[in-house]
Amino acid sequence: MIIHLNSQLHNDQLENLALEHKAVWFRSGETPVFVLPAAIKSLPDALQAHTTAHWPMESDIQLASRSYRSQVREVRWGNTTIGGQSNNTVVIAGPCSAESTDQLKVTAELLTDLGIKNIRAGAFKPRTSPYTFQGLGIEGLKMLAEVREKYGLTVVTEVRDATHVDAILEYADVIQIGSKSMYDHGILRRCGKANKPVLLKRGFGSTLQEFVQCAEFILSGGNEQVMLCERGIRTFETKTRFTLDLCGVAYLKEHTNLPVILDPSHAMGYAYGVADLARACVAMGVDGLLVEVHPTPKTALSDASQQLNHQEFRQLMSTLNPIAAAVGRTLV
Amino acid sequence: MIIHLNSQLHNDQLENLALEHKAVWFRSGETPVFVLPAAIKSLPDALQAHTTAHWPMESDIQLASRSYRSQVREVRWGNTTIGGQSNNTVVIAGPCSAESTDQLKVTAELLTDLGIKNIRAGAFKPRTSPYTFQGLGIEGLKMLAEVREKYGLTVVTEVRDATHVDAILEYADVIQIGSKSMYDHGILRRCGKANKPVLLKRGFGSTLQEFVQCAEFILSGGNEQVMLCERGIRTFETKTRFTLDLCGVAYLKEHTNLPVILDPSHAMGYAYGVADLARACVAMGVDGLLVEVHPTPKTALSDASQQLNHQEFRQLMSTLNPIAAAVGRTLV
Amino acid sequence: MIIHLNSQLHNDQLENLALEHKAVWFRSGETPVFVLPAAIKSLPDALQAHTTAHWPMESDIQLASRSYRSQVREVRWGNTTIGGQSNNTVVIAGPCSAESTDQLKVTAELLTDLGIKNIRAGAFKPRTSPYTFQGLGIEGLKMLAEVREKYGLTVVTEVRDATHVDAILEYADVIQIGSKSMYDHGILRRCGKANKPVLLKRGFGSTLQEFVQCAEFILSGGNEQVMLCERGIRTFETKTRFTLDLCGVAYLKEHTNLPVILDPSHAMGYAYGVADLARACVAMGVDGLLVEVHPTPKTALSDASQQLNHQEFRQLMSTLNPIAAAVGRTLV
Amino acid sequence: MIIHLNSQLHNDQLENLALEHKAVWFRSGETPVFVLPAAIKSLPDALQAHTTAHWPMESDIQLASRSYRSQVREVRWGNTTIGGQSNNTVVIAGPCSAESTDQLKVTAELLTDLGIKNIRAGAFKPRTSPYTFQGLGIEGLKMLAEVREKYGLTVVTEVRDATHVDAILEYADVIQIGSKSMYDHGILRRCGKANKPVLLKRGFGSTLQEFVQCAEFILSGGNEQVMLCERGIRTFETKTRFTLDLCGVAYLKEHTNLPVILDPSHAMGYAYGVADLARACVAMGVDGLLVEVHPTPKTALSDASQQLNHQEFRQLMSTLNPIAAAVGRTLV
Repeated sequence: MIIHLNSQLHNDQLENLALEHKAVWFRSGETPVFVLPAAIKSLPDALQAHTTAHWPMESDIQLASRSYRSQVREVRWGNTTIGGQSNNTVVIAGPCSAESTDQLKVTAELLTDLGIKNIRAGAFKPRTSPYTFQGLGIEGLKMLAEVREKYGLTVVTEVRDATHVDAILEYADVIQIGSKSMYDHGILRRCGKANKPVLLKRGFGSTLQEFVQCAEFILSGGNEQVMLCERGIRTFETKTRFTLDLCGVAYLKEHTNLPVILDPSHAMGYAYGVADLARACVAMGVDGLLVEVHPTPKTALSDASQQLNHQEFRQLMSTLNPIAAAVGRTLV
Repeated sequence: MIIHLNSQLHNDQLENLALEHKAVWFRSGETPVFVLPAAIKSLPDALQAHTTAHWPMESDIQLASRSYRSQVREVRWGNTTIGGQSNNTVVIAGPCSAESTDQLKVTAELLTDLGIKNIRAGAFKPRTSPYTFQGLGIEGLKMLAEVREKYGLTVVTEVRDATHVDAILEYADVIQIGSKSMYDHGILRRCGKANKPVLLKRGFGSTLQEFVQCAEFILSGGNEQVMLCERGIRTFETKTRFTLDLCGVAYLKEHTNLPVILDPSHAMGYAYGVADLARACVAMGVDGLLVEVHPTPKTALSDASQQLNHQEFRQLMSTLNPIAAAVGRTLV
Repeated sequence: MIIHLNSQLHNDQLENLALEHKAVWFRSGETPVFVLPAAIKSLPDALQAHTTAHWPMESDIQLASRSYRSQVREVRWGNTTIGGQSNNTVVIAGPCSAESTDQLKVTAELLTDLGIKNIRAGAFKPRTSPYTFQGLGIEGLKMLAEVREKYGLTVVTEVRDATHVDAILEYADVIQIGSKSMYDHGILRRCGKANKPVLLKRGFGSTLQEFVQCAEFILSGGNEQVMLCERGIRTFETKTRFTLDLCGVAYLKEHTNLPVILDPSHAMGYAYGVADLARACVAMGVDGLLVEVHPTPKTALSDASQQLNHQEFRQLMSTLNPIAAAVGRTLV
Repeated sequence: MIIHLNSQLHNDQLENLALEHKAVWFRSGETPVFVLPAAIKSLPDALQAHTTAHWPMESDIQLASRSYRSQVREVRWGNTTIGGQSNNTVVIAGPCSAESTDQLKVTAELLTDLGIKNIRAGAFKPRTSPYTFQGLGIEGLKMLAEVREKYGLTVVTEVRDATHVDAILEYADVIQIGSKSMYDHGILRRCGKANKPVLLKRGFGSTLQEFVQCAEFILSGGNEQVMLCERGIRTFETKTRFTLDLCGVAYLKEHTNLPVILDPSHAMGYAYGVADLARACVAMGVDGLLVEVHPTPKTALSDASQQLNHQEFRQLMSTLNPIAAAVGRTLV
């Protein structure tokens, strides 16, 4: 159950009430918001005097639910706005890993040329083997900061585990929580206290219910700038790296109030299918697209097979606008 | 390995050669085609004198492979052509089950009004419970024939098991092999000898490799009019009925020479997501779309939750043409 | 809902009542049994006068449910009895495919020597490629009949599709319905009218609910001799061929009244794991075990990698008895 | 490739060589061990003079591979030894969550009475909803320490994320890395530097390859005391919570040198199946068993449905010894 309380209440009063009712709470603007487990269906008597509105909920998808907020939440950073009244579909592109300042500059020039405002690149890579490239770490973050400065791009980059979440919060414009870290309470709770937008990727073995509930950790921490990213789930099919779950996207659009971003590159795992899938994603009317592009994919230090080269990416971008227009969206 | 032999050879000569080499064979037009297991990598000496061309293959995706035929095969029936040089995307629509002549006529009028030439409806339903509606059987096929006659539509309907494949072959314009029957050798072999197009649905628990290999049973029987239909695979996600595998569609488009048809209705299982998914499918540049539409979905005898009503379907159709145009396709 | 009616009612009376109430019906011994969809929760008034007992049910797992019959049903053929009061665990062993009379005789001698009474071997193989060995068909069935005659073994063999179900019914002692044919209505309905036990394998992409509902097709046809066989489901893990679902077996034992047989060979796909898994299966306290054994696995015409050789099989058998004893079962 | 180097080399020499060859390195006892990516198949010339032995490897399952060490590694803590020459199967039991000192004492008395030496209980719970019980945190760890002191039990408890890994290392005898944290580099790297055994649970959406590669992070950090825990994977089947992957266990036993522990409680999710599954696990001949037991499961603050009560647990334990004996193992 979500409860809006009287905004005159002081924080220590709220803290006491929350403790008493085992509520998670935060302020949304001025409004104190309490969240009780969904199993509680009627407003506790002791809270009635303080309550301005309340919403009994069906499951622990609460703050993210359309039953609570009927419109998609607006999320803003730098010059980018998605959700809300915007009808914008943001394109976020760049290499899998930050490998060098030169590599990032070449990418930044491509993006700038195409009117794309957001660059992505990983500095802390959640690799599955300890014996391969693990990312450049802080050094990679500094390279990204340099490119942001020079090209006026905003930066989306991934936090791998709770040991460096503060560094990511310092350098990134949007904090990406990767698929393998979706459940990481250390990251989720820290991001709940951050004032930057969070792009939460779905765990590839996670249900939609679990995915949105992880977003609830951030939302209920008081950070309401959360975007959901579907990037492919693991199925029995192995001809492709993962299976992009567009049925799940239809579910998220219908039932949640969070912007939805799609990552066809990780889902497919092979460059040849990315353009077709990206077009499908845009036709779904989603709020954003995350695409991996690399100056020379074959020499990439990670995810070599799935990154588009610059020519393939330019060609893709040229086909996306008419599809976006057909579904009433604008690429930004 | 696929081998084209000299077309002058008589059938009994071919039969003997095939027996000797454990080849599956048929005539494609005049050309005798032998198929040996993919494990055989070099042309058998005894066949060299008779061979006009041959293709060593990587796996038992052979006749369906782009390595054998670099273009998508053309498939034609009634007034419909897909694949080949056509750039057509066929829309096939109608109720899950044939329930009455009236129901089919109302549907047929909707389709005719929208310029759609193909009606779908099941007469033999592969239900999972013996205690629910099992379809009208032959009676349902007769209703479909009546509608075909009256409205000039062509009919796509499903064979459930090998006991009634001849009846389906008599009444249908396109034989649909359902997801649960994909492996049915009785059906596949019979369809390999038929002269009507076959729409083969992917088993929801089947890999792409197995799916295309089932198409090989039909192709190697001599029926080269085969379409592949992706309709959702079973994954751990249960908020939606199945998971539409568009990564798999990208694979099929890249590696096979068969037209690809998509069925968003069965994948989603809920009407609310079908329109978004249908738009995504068309944006993928596929050869066809199978959509369930029912005059009054709530009273449908099967799949009540996933069928669009007429208004929803009209609205969907009005949005598909600009997307098709954006990817160079024409809806038929 | 399951309804037992007055046994004095004539078949034509029952037929009329069944039509009127859309019931599936059969006689269990003398007792007429009606089954209505589980959605019907109260006994129809018009049936009350004829009803001797009735069971409202939660789902369309009805005749197979423990709510209907609290004990495991007894299934008998030849000298074998499982379920009921027996505490027997039957071992059914043999090669994947019947390849020759000699091969079957060698196997039969092994089995006889070990006190095993049931031989398995496939004559109609549901292969996924048309270009590999498809089984010996009727010829294979005749070989099996010869071995039965000579060694006094009973024969378990698989029906692939509805085109040859009568042949299987003629030659087999137990009809095995394979994983790929689990949904085959042609086979299920025919087996429902047969008077031989049926071993129904779970589709590798099928839920437990669907699996048991397919058994309901046979049971509600009047054949109450049905065994459920778990043989591995398809998951994302590909190091092994399938994933043996022993959690599912625990579910079946708790909720259904049908004997449960396990097939570790197909689940594992590799000989090295079969013995460990077979021991685990016996420790689960199941009603039977299906193991593939071949005189020379490396030369087998199908499933070469998963068949045990004779020495491995003998060694396995020597370890099973103490485990069976520890859980109060007897191997037969 | 794994390389053993001359033990006379100083750490700074080794550090330089490792940097030069992009090797991960540690000392196993005195022996310096380098690990290069498996893609490297021949010993680098510059290392030959320093090399005492080397093993080219097929995949990045390297230190954990049977190709490197043909015997299962011994792991020891408190009075417990598994692996190596021991043939021991350790039983680790206790409630899902530490809830109170009283609850833990009651459990400890049960375990002591049954001769069980290891208690499990979670203090930091990786819940999927922010609105339910999250564990007692440090307070829970202190309760566990108190119970260890009083009853002489050793404690297995879970680290949830990298923010409290040092606390867990201080209080636990065995550090459990939970399923949702399997990929957590912060935890894995810290545990690689720890001198306590680590029980690594398989991510429920993770392949066996990824699972063992996560163990490689710990092993290559220099901590060779790693145990693998299979606890059920996520599949399409939802009648049970997860699917215990015993085929995967057979794979791990064949291909890796790490002890294997099984957790039937989390796999099943329902108390009714846990005993049958536990017996199956012991019959597989594994190195350990993790079972959830709670004084009053219905009032448990987490995982209420899957915990055995004391009577059920006693009954289970009484049946495990004969099975263990039948497969040559001793329960400890």
